[in-house]
Amino acid sequence: MTTQNFEDLVQIVGKEDCFNDKAHLSAYCYDATKERKYPECVIFPHNEEEVSKILKYCNTHKIPIIPRGAGSGFTGGALAVNGGVVLALEKHMNKILEIDMENMVARVEPGVVNMQLQKAVEAVRLFYPPDPASEHYSTLGGNVSENAGGMRAAKYGITKDFVMALRAVLPNGEIIRAGKKTIKDVAGYNIAGILIASEGTLAVITEITLKLLSKPKLSQSAMGIFPSIQSAMNAVYKTMASGITPVAMEFLDNLSIRAVEEKFKKGLPTDAGAILITEVDGNLQEEIDFQIQKIEEKFYENGASKFIKANSKEEAQDLWFARKNASPSITIYGSKKLNEDITVPRSKLPELLERIGEVSKKYGVVIPCFGHTGDGNVHTNVMVDGSKEEELEKGHKAIKEIFEITIELGGTLSGEHGIGLSKAPFMELAFSKEEMELFRNIKKAFDPNNILNPGKMNL
Amino acid sequence: MTTQNFEDLVQIVGKEDCFNDKAHLSAYCYDATKERKYPECVIFPHNEEEVSKILKYCNTHKIPIIPRGAGSGFTGGALAVNGGVVLALEKHMNKILEIDMENMVARVEPGVVNMQLQKAVEAVRLFYPPDPASEHYSTLGGNVSENAGGMRAAKYGITKDFVMALRAVLPNGEIIRAGKKTIKDVAGYNIAGILIASEGTLAVITEITLKLLSKPKLSQSAMGIFPSIQSAMNAVYKTMASGITPVAMEFLDNLSIRAVEEKFKKGLPTDAGAILITEVDGNLQEEIDFQIQKIEEKFYENGASKFIKANSKEEAQDLWFARKNASPSITIYGSKKLNEDITVPRSKLPELLERIGEVSKKYGVVIPCFGHTGDGNVHTNVMVDGSKEEELEKGHKAIKEIFEITIELGGTLSGEHGIGLSKAPFMELAFSKEEMELFRNIKKAFDPNNILNPGKMNL
Repeated sequence: MTTQNFEDLVQIVGKEDCFNDKAHLSAYCYDATKERKYPECVIFPHNEEEVSKILKYCNTHKIPIIPRGAGSGFTGGALAVNGGVVLALEKHMNKILEIDMENMVARVEPGVVNMQLQKAVEAVRLFYPPDPASEHYSTLGGNVSENAGGMRAAKYGITKDFVMALRAVLPNGEIIRAGKKTIKDVAGYNIAGILIASEGTLAVITEITLKLLSKPKLSQSAMGIFPSIQSAMNAVYKTMASGITPVAMEFLDNLSIRAVEEKFKKGLPTDAGAILITEVDGNLQEEIDFQIQKIEEKFYENGASKFIKANSKEEAQDLWFARKNASPSITIYGSKKLNEDITVPRSKLPELLERIGEVSKKYGVVIPCFGHTGDGNVHTNVMVDGSKEEELEKGHKAIKEIFEITIELGGTLSGEHGIGLSKAPFMELAFSKEEMELFRNIKKAFDPNNILNPGKMNL
Repeated sequence: MTTQNFEDLVQIVGKEDCFNDKAHLSAYCYDATKERKYPECVIFPHNEEEVSKILKYCNTHKIPIIPRGAGSGFTGGALAVNGGVVLALEKHMNKILEIDMENMVARVEPGVVNMQLQKAVEAVRLFYPPDPASEHYSTLGGNVSENAGGMRAAKYGITKDFVMALRAVLPNGEIIRAGKKTIKDVAGYNIAGILIASEGTLAVITEITLKLLSKPKLSQSAMGIFPSIQSAMNAVYKTMASGITPVAMEFLDNLSIRAVEEKFKKGLPTDAGAILITEVDGNLQEEIDFQIQKIEEKFYENGASKFIKANSKEEAQDLWFARKNASPSITIYGSKKLNEDITVPRSKLPELLERIGEVSKKYGVVIPCFGHTGDGNVHTNVMVDGSKEEELEKGHKAIKEIFEITIELGGTLSGEHGIGLSKAPFMELAFSKEEMELFRNIKKAFDPNNILNPGKMNL
């Protein structure tokens, strides 16, 4: 980028929202991976029209554009690997434009924080289910770009299941609409479908129309304690296959349980092989009782030693404490956490966890696991001493092997975090040469000059 | 196509499955639109490998390929407008490959008939909800290619909501896999997402992995009788917005009611402005009662004169009779039915129906309407005397005006039938020049030689 480029961009958004000083470049050079890649310019656009002008300009001058929400991604999706402009959407484009109660639909700008929408719709007894762990700070634009999941995915699905329509700006500055505020729409190609999870590489999303549900009036949580990880994994898929669909079905393995206990002294069962924490919801007490009773039955059938029901909001919070604090607690095992979010068909969970145990032994690395077993999604955390090169190397080898096992079991590299930079080298494990070529052809169809978030997804 | 081309194709599949005789070309020259477009060759491939070889050959020789399921589409999607090869998948590639009860997933070939899968999974108490009116003959490959809906879409969604993964052959013969047997998968672009509803223009689908649900044990149907179409449409969206999600919420207007009554003498309320027929489901009687009671309340609040509950399977069938026989009955109004499947946000239904009434008066054409109001999808049927040119012309003008109203109300040209040939001229009403260009770029990314189902969707 030249000084002239910078000045031209200042003309579009004004000098209060276009920066190339060190402070701004530093503030926008990282995400949750903690890698640093410095952009040459940070812009805070006010509206779609400005986004269009910026893209058109950058396309003409072949300047990379990196769209960014909260920068809370785990795979480097918001990092400016080739310099260029970080297009930060959280400052001005952060308004809830409409909550349409009649059609149960919300229209938002991309910079709205997930929890902000959840709260706004719950205030009118509606419900936006996707709840990534980052819900308090990640933006809906980021959620759509990465197709974020969360704890409630087992019953309600993930971000893609709620996106009805998008407005977006193509790299050439053209503004497009994709989808409608209707449940059915089969006219034209499903552009919204391909923009979801495209990690900011195809277009800049400027408006999102999301489906809302009615908020169930009742819910109940429960915990099952299991002697082994295998018995817990069997209980997961056998409960789901019995026709019960809990809102959440989360697990912690023994290492994770012990980590939380060591940090918080909550009286957790540190000798358990695993615990499962579940929640059901509904509008009638009978529905709640029916589901909890069925889960209890399935848990005991599959070897649970104990089943604890929460009988109040406080008791529910207690049961969920371990799960919500697993991620920060496991740092006791190593200063550097190489965390992945592999996903397999639920029935493969017992085998997956068994084989992760073997990888752990083989490389002598501790691998605490927890996560969203209700949808087959396991957060595997290879813990190493980040200051030792040989430890890091062992960790990376272990991860590669875990990826290979996952693919072999019919699973995917990423259930919710995306590919970005971190997983780009593993794309060839999951996709054939022909599939990668198709991805690249699609990228070219949208972005022939490769200005949008270049260097990501091994494209 | 030359004689040599034909002989080369015979080499791939054998002479028992490759034809260019008049009988075969005639049998595969039409679909539910009743237009006739003759292919030059009809091929019945046995497997993915043959599909790959055929596509590779046709791509090299620039021969059009038209993938075809049951040929039951309403928009000419399976018509060979430029000659070439009809690739008929219903004869050999029609096997259910797997019903995976542990993961609640089915794997099928594209030629499996929708109802065949429904029955197979219900035999093991699982559930595949999408139920297009063509369920007894349309194939799942066709359902995916058109993103078919059905009566149960109000609660369960449409075909796209059940597709987890696809295998497909690109025009160059390369075989790709898209998606996984996992609920979450965010690695790579969402290729399955864009193949759904692509009407056979991007790739030939050779295997479909579908999500299954547990079959609810109980259901109940009910009917509401309304003095006017407006009161019924208000009842629809106000019921849905109250937090009740019926499996189906279908309507018939007065013209449709009278047509069914004239044909079948069932004692239907011929003076009603409209009727709504609804069904709820669940696993507990309390859930059923709660939902039916809420719907009754909302119906009466919005002007219903009567609410009839079905208390047996026979009574339910009686209530549904009118809806299921609406389409064949309305032919009493004219020999030619110009039927469309426009969809609007639910809250716009009252205005949509009012304005269709105005169009009917303006052009002096009868327009009976019925359909899936639970998801805003209305089957509008402009009835004309097909033998009179000026009647047909009036009908087409009326349809164009109805499309314009639909778009103005935030709706879509097609909720479930697709664009194909019939609606291709209206694409410019719904999409901008830039959006059409993006569609064409995507088409080129998959199919640079334009051999797959050419001439469709105004691409």
